[in-house]
Amino acid sequence: MERLDDVIVVLVETSHPGNIGASARAMKTMGLRRMRLVAPKRYPCAEATERAAGADDILHEAEVFESLDEALVGTAWAVATSARERHLDWPVLDPQGCAETVLARSREVDGPLALVFGRERSGLTNDELDKCQALVRIPTAQSYRSLNLAAAVQLLSYELRKAALGETAVPPADVRPLATPDELEGLYGHLERALTVIGYFDPSKPRLLMRRLRRLFARAALERSELNILRGILAAVEGRASDRKQTGPDR
Amino acid sequence: MERLDDVIVVLVETSHPGNIGASARAMKTMGLRRMRLVAPKRYPCAEATERAAGADDILHEAEVFESLDEALVGTAWAVATSARERHLDWPVLDPQGCAETVLARSREVDGPLALVFGRERSGLTNDELDKCQALVRIPTAQSYRSLNLAAAVQLLSYELRKAALGETAVPPADVRPLATPDELEGLYGHLERALTVIGYFDPSKPRLLMRRLRRLFARAALERSELNILRGILAAVEGRASDRKQTGPDR
Repeated sequence: MERLDDVIVVLVETSHPGNIGASARAMKTMGLRRMRLVAPKRYPCAEATERAAGADDILHEAEVFESLDEALVGTAWAVATSARERHLDWPVLDPQGCAETVLARSREVDGPLALVFGRERSGLTNDELDKCQALVRIPTAQSYRSLNLAAAVQLLSYELRKAALGETAVPPADVRPLATPDELEGLYGHLERALTVIGYFDPSKPRLLMRRLRRLFARAALERSELNILRGILAAVEGRASDRKQTGPDR
Repeated sequence: MERLDDVIVVLVETSHPGNIGASARAMKTMGLRRMRLVAPKRYPCAEATERAAGADDILHEAEVFESLDEALVGTAWAVATSARERHLDWPVLDPQGCAETVLARSREVDGPLALVFGRERSGLTNDELDKCQALVRIPTAQSYRSLNLAAAVQLLSYELRKAALGETAVPPADVRPLATPDELEGLYGHLERALTVIGYFDPSKPRLLMRRLRRLFARAALERSELNILRGILAAVEGRASDRKQTGPDR
């Protein structure tokens, strides 16, 4: 079960300290240990420790950050949780699929994996979602979707434990290194510049183009060598387009 | 999901009213509605209503009994939850097996089925266990088994919902049309032409480039709308590159 040590639970702007404690307890019952907190409203707090009920070692070791960006530094892959029904072009995992994917990724990448939980009322912002490579949604009754934060942590931790217990510990033979989040950000920046140069993208009217492309490539789980091919193509596109600018009038 | 209406969650001598409320919330998120309480320590209680967070209809309709015997009157089958590792002669189900068994029983018997949860600290007595027909244990980390009562209700309700959804096999609501094989071939042809135009691909020395790109996009399971975006980008790339050919010398 040492693979569960690679998983970091990230709680973003939690309002109720009791939920932080209950989440620590939920994690510990399932063998998870690493917690990161992004700008918790009240923390540390006696209520958190009380609800942790013996899982306060997880709280003691929890790291606090000011933004999700900082909390994700060093992580190799992140999955966002969402209660919303529809997300443009996101591949939405169910909890079991999420657990299997997380464990598969943990074999492919170096560094910990993050499971990101949003605010109690409003979840994660689109910006925060975009920093993650996948999305998981816990199926709830249509008439009542109000899953408690710690309950969501409990369910996903439980599925992770189930998946880890079910694993036969045989790693697949030929794992290729995946692109890191930093490399992906580099690709998206390059893509945006190239699309701007050829006139396909207008940064002043971004609409959903870049988000749709991000999701497409996130879904593909790009290997590093594939990312390098794409960057080579973009460089060639930019080179041609800028050649053209020097040699002829703009349309 | 009407079969979930056949399931009654029975909480025996719960000490903390907050756990009763949180259990109601956990049940409702998963589509369960019927709760019975055996000799709760403090109930009704504002703390229960508060933690129910909108699932207070379940609390209002919950029935209160003095003993487990009375709470099980009219039920056709009951499964007891236990954190203990071993129970003499008991067939111990895991949560998924429990959910499948409960749904199977609900087809076989007349009358509701009971899921019985014990006291926060001491669980169910042997006498109480003997009144049930099966036992379910939620697997926890060996070093820390302190699963919160409402978290246990959440996990078993979740597995019941999963099992019920699996039975009815409802297709997901918002499936977006994937690109067809023909459309994909059109994309690959267009991609090859555009890469040739910008000088990135040499058809006389194809090597593995196109195969790798095919593999990447195949893995992403492109939607039709995404494919259309990519073709729009390729058209813009070709447009720029051919403009350039007409206006300036080749390198």
